[in-house]
Amino acid sequence: VNAEIIAIGSELLTPHRLDTNSLFLTGQLNQLGVEVSFKTVVGDRRADLVATARIALGRADVVIFMGGLGPTEDDLTRECVAETLGRPLQRHARIVEDLRARFAARGWKMSENNERQGDVITGAEALDNKRGSAPGQFLHIDDEHGNAIIILLPGPPHELRAMFEEQCLHRLQAILPPQFIATRELKIAMIGESVADKRAAPIYKAHSAIETTILAGTPGEVQLHLRSQAGSLEEAQKRVDALATALEDEFDDAIFASRGESMEQIVGYYLGMRAATLAAAESCTGGMLAERITSVPGSSRYFLGGAVVYDNSLKSELAGVPPLLIAEHGAVSGQVAAALAEGIRAKCKATLGVGITGIAGPGGGSEEKPVGLVFHALADGTNTEVVERKFPGDRDRIRHWATQQALDMIRRKLM
Amino acid sequence: VNAEIIAIGSELLTPHRLDTNSLFLTGQLNQLGVEVSFKTVVGDRRADLVATARIALGRADVVIFMGGLGPTEDDLTRECVAETLGRPLQRHARIVEDLRARFAARGWKMSENNERQGDVITGAEALDNKRGSAPGQFLHIDDEHGNAIIILLPGPPHELRAMFEEQCLHRLQAILPPQFIATRELKIAMIGESVADKRAAPIYKAHSAIETTILAGTPGEVQLHLRSQAGSLEEAQKRVDALATALEDEFDDAIFASRGESMEQIVGYYLGMRAATLAAAESCTGGMLAERITSVPGSSRYFLGGAVVYDNSLKSELAGVPPLLIAEHGAVSGQVAAALAEGIRAKCKATLGVGITGIAGPGGGSEEKPVGLVFHALADGTNTEVVERKFPGDRDRIRHWATQQALDMIRRKLM
Repeated sequence: VNAEIIAIGSELLTPHRLDTNSLFLTGQLNQLGVEVSFKTVVGDRRADLVATARIALGRADVVIFMGGLGPTEDDLTRECVAETLGRPLQRHARIVEDLRARFAARGWKMSENNERQGDVITGAEALDNKRGSAPGQFLHIDDEHGNAIIILLPGPPHELRAMFEEQCLHRLQAILPPQFIATRELKIAMIGESVADKRAAPIYKAHSAIETTILAGTPGEVQLHLRSQAGSLEEAQKRVDALATALEDEFDDAIFASRGESMEQIVGYYLGMRAATLAAAESCTGGMLAERITSVPGSSRYFLGGAVVYDNSLKSELAGVPPLLIAEHGAVSGQVAAALAEGIRAKCKATLGVGITGIAGPGGGSEEKPVGLVFHALADGTNTEVVERKFPGDRDRIRHWATQQALDMIRRKLM
Repeated sequence: VNAEIIAIGSELLTPHRLDTNSLFLTGQLNQLGVEVSFKTVVGDRRADLVATARIALGRADVVIFMGGLGPTEDDLTRECVAETLGRPLQRHARIVEDLRARFAARGWKMSENNERQGDVITGAEALDNKRGSAPGQFLHIDDEHGNAIIILLPGPPHELRAMFEEQCLHRLQAILPPQFIATRELKIAMIGESVADKRAAPIYKAHSAIETTILAGTPGEVQLHLRSQAGSLEEAQKRVDALATALEDEFDDAIFASRGESMEQIVGYYLGMRAATLAAAESCTGGMLAERITSVPGSSRYFLGGAVVYDNSLKSELAGVPPLLIAEHGAVSGQVAAALAEGIRAKCKATLGVGITGIAGPGGGSEEKPVGLVFHALADGTNTEVVERKFPGDRDRIRHWATQQALDMIRRKLM
């Protein structure tokens, strides 16, 4: 069973906007055993839309139209799909009444244009939109003209997602043959995509009937997506789990997540489990490490805070680094990284202290200390571990790499 | 003149990857006076690719194919376009020699498969790829079969961009009628998209022949893109500048950038111009403000550093907030925000100090102090300004809003 996803709207043909709904829909369709063969973006011109609908209905079993369901004259999806199918629109009085009530509740009078949102293709079911005004439509054709599933969804992502999950999923499951698909998502820290791919390849070969995808996440993260389809869910799950276990043997503790968790979540999970607290002193990452850690809800339970010490005098003032140490070794050095970690740990009375100092560029590099050179330190009160790395890429990537390295050091410490 | 952009590759039909090249190409094509009418994503199946090429050549003047130019059997773009056009492929000995030399330089022997990359559609010019192995192709058909421009580009973004800018742009300019297009990008702080749109609408009406687009950026930022096409560049520039001036009159100092600069850049620009320095004490934003400020290269000239003070005792220890003040008013209060700004300013010996404290959620809210409530303070040694806001959205959006508010306060102070 194959699908085509069509995004409608002239704004999607500008340099500014991308259709991202199709990623969500593709994930959902794949779980139903449906592969996406084509994705098309078309503007608000009637002739273009009708031509696109005709082509899609000729080559896909499931056709999903997104957008163009509003009340304005530019919203032509209903009309154009109806025209292509040769099935007239019928105005549903109940939808029009609902819309009118919606407007009245806000003290507005509904303009006549809005009634068009009550037009439903003959034979289609209207799909309620709890988060917006435009209803969707679901049509299953199974007659002498062929067999096709046609879905019309609103464009705004939160409306589309809710409508698909709540109203399309069970309708599709009732029509499509049952699927037993299991997935796993492993994440690997601080190993490059091509190295990870080379190490994974021979393991993949020993496991059949599993679809694997390797993806580079943010710097310092590689994702392995595993997906298997079988005669039963147990069988599919057994297959992906067996491959996941074999990959975990190969990559060992470089795998930080086995079900798609983020590095920040995992570090938070370990800190919580060990009842440990954390403080950070950052120079070149300028707050990015703290920002990543605190992006996790509830992080105030284990993250106390820290200092951003761009200026050298602040390395002393806020994180207790002896000025002489900076004078002797330079601000970008293993010694200063260690002092940052130890100093911020003491200052904040934390279980663990992290220090980062480096050169994010583009300026400030030298032959001895080039752009990309970063020192990371982790202090626990007894030992202080220091890791020196030379990261590739631009300022943003170097800063990401450095935060990932620091998070990975915390994770390994607590594992 | 209209275009269709076709992205080729089965990985672009998974839930994991999006075509982003088309945004770049659309921007470039628009500057040449070419509108994009369709965007299509198709996998590596021969029949699908030929069908897609046939449809595109029937409805667009310029057709750009991206991807599928590598040496593997999945790379079918060359063959399928050649088949669709009825023009055989010709192997260019020079390209094959270049590829062989490329391999030899790395000490590798080239496999025969790679020779396929030397296959060029009859009549097309080969486009050198300085950043990868796959050459592109440029074909201008202007005969009894019609008039069309067909371009084949490699998929990796940095290869595609360089090849388009260096080798396609001047070829297209030589064929297409000359265009005189001017653009401006205004950015507005802390005003919602719909309010901004309503205020801009009557001003747009008084200025003809200008295409306008409103876009919501990160929370607290709305972009107005202006674009005009005229008989001369001066005329086009005069038009967009006149509209930009009228919009600047309407939105006054809410407009923080008039040529697309980021808020962080503008704040850095003002700090540098005034020879002022900045320090920040952040609670709920957890380092995001410092991270945004330090994302700008050279920010060490004006940003000294600061503290992330999640834990209340650190608000006192690192930013000098009297513990009694926290006990009296609560950590989330205007008084504590002001004390954070004043304390961090003194601690870091900065010209300006910023303090942020609030409730980013999802937990921690109460009836009196709900999720989204944030206090922002800016201290200059004489006065301390405090702004209380209640932001909508989830944890990430609330934190973004709060950093934008703080940056906007700094900007207005220095303006």
